[in-house]
Amino acid sequence: MTGVGLIGGGRIGSLHAGNIARHVHARLVAVHDAQPAAARVLADRYGAEVAESVDALLANRDVDALFICSPTDTHVDLIGRAAAAGKAIFCEKPIDIEMASAARVPVMLERNPVPFMIGFHRRFDPSTRRIAEHIASGDLGKVEFIRVTSRDPAPPPIAYIQSSGGVFRDMTIHDLDLCRWLTGREFTTVFAKGFCLVDPAIGQAGDFDTAFVCLWAEDGVHCVLQNSRRSNCGFDQRIEIMGSLAAASMDNLPATQTSLLGPRGKDSDRLPDHFPQRYAGAYVAQLDAFLDAVRERRNPPTTALDGLAALQLADACAESASKGVPVRVHPLAQEHAKKAPASELIAG
Amino acid sequence: MTGVGLIGGGRIGSLHAGNIARHVHARLVAVHDAQPAAARVLADRYGAEVAESVDALLANRDVDALFICSPTDTHVDLIGRAAAAGKAIFCEKPIDIEMASAARVPVMLERNPVPFMIGFHRRFDPSTRRIAEHIASGDLGKVEFIRVTSRDPAPPPIAYIQSSGGVFRDMTIHDLDLCRWLTGREFTTVFAKGFCLVDPAIGQAGDFDTAFVCLWAEDGVHCVLQNSRRSNCGFDQRIEIMGSLAAASMDNLPATQTSLLGPRGKDSDRLPDHFPQRYAGAYVAQLDAFLDAVRERRNPPTTALDGLAALQLADACAESASKGVPVRVHPLAQEHAKKAPASELIAG
Amino acid sequence: MTGVGLIGGGRIGSLHAGNIARHVHARLVAVHDAQPAAARVLADRYGAEVAESVDALLANRDVDALFICSPTDTHVDLIGRAAAAGKAIFCEKPIDIEMASAARVPVMLERNPVPFMIGFHRRFDPSTRRIAEHIASGDLGKVEFIRVTSRDPAPPPIAYIQSSGGVFRDMTIHDLDLCRWLTGREFTTVFAKGFCLVDPAIGQAGDFDTAFVCLWAEDGVHCVLQNSRRSNCGFDQRIEIMGSLAAASMDNLPATQTSLLGPRGKDSDRLPDHFPQRYAGAYVAQLDAFLDAVRERRNPPTTALDGLAALQLADACAESASKGVPVRVHPLAQEHAKKAPASELIAG
Amino acid sequence: MTGVGLIGGGRIGSLHAGNIARHVHARLVAVHDAQPAAARVLADRYGAEVAESVDALLANRDVDALFICSPTDTHVDLIGRAAAAGKAIFCEKPIDIEMASAARVPVMLERNPVPFMIGFHRRFDPSTRRIAEHIASGDLGKVEFIRVTSRDPAPPPIAYIQSSGGVFRDMTIHDLDLCRWLTGREFTTVFAKGFCLVDPAIGQAGDFDTAFVCLWAEDGVHCVLQNSRRSNCGFDQRIEIMGSLAAASMDNLPATQTSLLGPRGKDSDRLPDHFPQRYAGAYVAQLDAFLDAVRERRNPPTTALDGLAALQLADACAESASKGVPVRVHPLAQEHAKKAPASELIAG
Repeated sequence: MTGVGLIGGGRIGSLHAGNIARHVHARLVAVHDAQPAAARVLADRYGAEVAESVDALLANRDVDALFICSPTDTHVDLIGRAAAAGKAIFCEKPIDIEMASAARVPVMLERNPVPFMIGFHRRFDPSTRRIAEHIASGDLGKVEFIRVTSRDPAPPPIAYIQSSGGVFRDMTIHDLDLCRWLTGREFTTVFAKGFCLVDPAIGQAGDFDTAFVCLWAEDGVHCVLQNSRRSNCGFDQRIEIMGSLAAASMDNLPATQTSLLGPRGKDSDRLPDHFPQRYAGAYVAQLDAFLDAVRERRNPPTTALDGLAALQLADACAESASKGVPVRVHPLAQEHAKKAPASELIAG
Repeated sequence: MTGVGLIGGGRIGSLHAGNIARHVHARLVAVHDAQPAAARVLADRYGAEVAESVDALLANRDVDALFICSPTDTHVDLIGRAAAAGKAIFCEKPIDIEMASAARVPVMLERNPVPFMIGFHRRFDPSTRRIAEHIASGDLGKVEFIRVTSRDPAPPPIAYIQSSGGVFRDMTIHDLDLCRWLTGREFTTVFAKGFCLVDPAIGQAGDFDTAFVCLWAEDGVHCVLQNSRRSNCGFDQRIEIMGSLAAASMDNLPATQTSLLGPRGKDSDRLPDHFPQRYAGAYVAQLDAFLDAVRERRNPPTTALDGLAALQLADACAESASKGVPVRVHPLAQEHAKKAPASELIAG
Repeated sequence: MTGVGLIGGGRIGSLHAGNIARHVHARLVAVHDAQPAAARVLADRYGAEVAESVDALLANRDVDALFICSPTDTHVDLIGRAAAAGKAIFCEKPIDIEMASAARVPVMLERNPVPFMIGFHRRFDPSTRRIAEHIASGDLGKVEFIRVTSRDPAPPPIAYIQSSGGVFRDMTIHDLDLCRWLTGREFTTVFAKGFCLVDPAIGQAGDFDTAFVCLWAEDGVHCVLQNSRRSNCGFDQRIEIMGSLAAASMDNLPATQTSLLGPRGKDSDRLPDHFPQRYAGAYVAQLDAFLDAVRERRNPPTTALDGLAALQLADACAESASKGVPVRVHPLAQEHAKKAPASELIAG
Repeated sequence: MTGVGLIGGGRIGSLHAGNIARHVHARLVAVHDAQPAAARVLADRYGAEVAESVDALLANRDVDALFICSPTDTHVDLIGRAAAAGKAIFCEKPIDIEMASAARVPVMLERNPVPFMIGFHRRFDPSTRRIAEHIASGDLGKVEFIRVTSRDPAPPPIAYIQSSGGVFRDMTIHDLDLCRWLTGREFTTVFAKGFCLVDPAIGQAGDFDTAFVCLWAEDGVHCVLQNSRRSNCGFDQRIEIMGSLAAASMDNLPATQTSLLGPRGKDSDRLPDHFPQRYAGAYVAQLDAFLDAVRERRNPPTTALDGLAALQLADACAESASKGVPVRVHPLAQEHAKKAPASELIAG
């Protein structure tokens, strides 16, 4: 039974808290939030205590692992303190919106080697994993092309946009991580183009609400990503990967398996409202993977370097969209990888 | 080039006339209809002549083959006259709504052995044939169960209902033929139940507008058919056949391959309006099969005996629905089959 | 927080135990099984204690509600004892395979009015509920026809078959309940036919492995059910319901939303292995409904009368399959309903 | 009845010849091919005569309209001669692989105004038209994004590649035309990237076998096209168009409406082999549109300017892929449009 402390009782924090509370091998010990009332709600709902400060949470000896679900600009500091306290760490993406700041995390973890996992939950989605299985089994032959469609149902509040780091670092980053993970490639060129088609306020905030991204590796494996802040049809999440022998695709998960056959044709059920509905199973599987790694004192499967590499690609997207030309990327993952192999056991 | 005469310029006659006129190996020579104006329309449209009488049509030496598309109660008489005139014959189903009358046809054809084909067009539908291929290839293993759904978009006029012979002889007969053809079985017991849920006038005409039929063979192969005169969603035509290894199904053919993804979900395009849209390809393939047989002076693949056997099952449906109990059927096809093997060449 | 005791640590008992342990508003207090080792496994896994006897379990004051997951022939006795002890009761279906015995349960509950729920989990499946919503909203117009396909992946052991009460009481009973629930009808005539196509040993055990059932109500609403003990393609669960305006269907839930497009076409992912995979969400929602009712001291939504009515229809199936003719059913639910309205609050 | 002459008895010429011969309002009068034997085959099959020369064909007074299906480098010359002879002209795409040469055609047609149609058959595909209807009806709201996937089953012979003008002018050109037609936009920037992943011989011939293309208009409407010379799964043709309210997509047309449900899941039927199977209906509808325009002496719906504009975009793709940066396009269609409005009647 792993004791878990959680910082940040917002939307994603609440989602994790529920999963932790329901998990047979975990216990939600304490919750901290800058706004004590938010921590209180979760603590009461799930039988945990409220930690009045981060220090109090880190000093709690029942807390084996920390979930960092607070605002992005607090992540790096909290990672450092939690690592120093010897806690296993799960951190929501992104590590930071600034590469320079995020790059401090591997150094911290080298100094205090604790299990660290970055929240790229999509890697744990059963459909996404099935695609990975098709690749690994050779069903697809040689992988050539990936297409990812990620569209939110409707734009978030402008305040969120303003602190998000921009659509590429906030939204595309998940797709960029998928491309790396599914292909095992480090992409070396990025071409991105952003538009403001949904809400002029998003443009005034210096961001795009619609974008496409192309990226490719030395050997010709290429990806095209399509993002929008507004689908008007729910949470639209699709992947297609084409190989020399076959193509695998992940279609949307409808709300139910029902359809209605009427005069206009056959209507499937609506898409999931948003990520908590679509990726409910992925979040649970991600938690399983984290708890397994903590119990076995080894590195979880999504590392700080994965977080850095995806952020680097997102930075390249932003630069390409700004300059209007393709941008070269010099993969840092490989260098770091020498120092901190993802599969290495951490001394207990 | 086969010269074709056609009797009956109604809906199905027009459909056949168009296919004949467009066929590279056929020529529409002459058209007869009890109402000369109807014949005139088709003749003008397709560059044929109007035959003022059946005798004139049968006397026309350019007419090698006759399409009988006139009302059902004229079929047997016309078959006899055409056979006597040595014309190859395509006759729309059913041969007759009375078994005793229909049973005269094999005798006529024994006397005047001409190529004779009954219009069970669904056997020629590419999707239906693909199911037959799955059975033949062993993909399904041992066949156990067939389900057929046939629903018309909306009821025909009451006048049509009144002369149709009832829903089982008019509509179910196609499904009954499919069950025989797909399984290669002669079914020995029938249980049918009819309802009047759509239009009370249909009940007043002594018919049902909604029905299900169950039939099974000695070895346990069984079928369930579902019929309705009103789907309210177009022409609903589905087949599912379950075997020991797999199940094959034929789903509806949407009007186009498009769908619309919106707030309510993903909507496929509407079903075909009715049989001319759904079975356009089947009618062409049926014509191909008929012309091939005529050219090669052999029996076409759907025989008079197929017409009789399906009618016999339809009679059993009507009897079962009337009595409320299962009805035994003594397959006649086997007896007749000894005398007129379907694949035998006809002496030229 | 409702304290739950559970009797029967087999397949379905384990499934319920896990859901109870994960539920935020429930606590698995104690487990009893005739084989103590089975109880021990669940107790250890979920932090519960082992009850050495039923009496000990019922005497435990932390146990507010009892889950009866033991063999069918123990159900009625356990219900009586649990009701006498004032425990809320969840009982797996069927109440009993003998109608006379099952019919004692409403009497028991009248004497000791505790919340009682019979395990018809499919009513809580999100897709099935979506169909119910389409009916309730009027999307379908007047309901006319239901088709249910239920096929197990492969037959259970012969020992299970022998004590199952036969395919109609064991397997079809779920479909029969769905037909009642979805249409709100009491069906008055049943025609059923069974076959032994899968395993002769099943026939030797006096049972069928393949069956179809037709049932209809006075107003012409009719159902056709198709059952098989072996699909060879996973757990095949489909519903279609046709109304005057539209048809709603529930298709199978594939293991994932992925498909593979290769030379043979587009292959969707495989079906769920069996009911725990397919109905995982339904079991959780059923538990929610039970706990809500217990907390609010009212009757849960699936009652003892629902259990009796479905069993009565299953009996009629067996009788029809045996006699070869349709069998009339005199709905008992209506009489009982007067005495024990499903929605009435139970005095606390 | 329109008399048609046809030049070029290859694959596409044969396809057109069959459609013309089957058309109720057309007659295939004469066929010319540089290789007389090829012309003879078609002439014999469809009851036409062989024209020994282009001049003989153009001199034939029964020839009202000419189908130009000969090699691309003969198109412009033949268009000029046919226009001078007053024949209506259908010309297969592309007009020419050189923009300068192709640009002579509008001038020729201004001098000799005959009905002229370029072969962009996909515009006439019923599914593609359904998407256009969704746009026109407002179902999609404001159009924002189009994605087109076009993948051939397997690469053509290297000889074909060498004279094709390259993948963008040969293959992508259809997708480029679709983007123009569906959005009504002239795209002003193109970014394209080509790869050689399928066959090194294609790269040695100076061409790509795999490519993506991005293009966008001033108002932010953008397109991403994906092309491959080898899908290994048949002819893969898909469109998706996303608007502010909904997204419409055209999925592949399977060979039949059947599927097989087995242990691995539900397998739909295979894709069409290639364009003659997939676009059979589109070619017939295109012929209808041409014949209607000829009969009514008006411009057909796909004009020489459409051919030029698509070629210009294809040129920009080639330039972008060569230079590695986005390329600006200065739409010529608008200028030309002033001189030769697509809908204007041609003096008879």
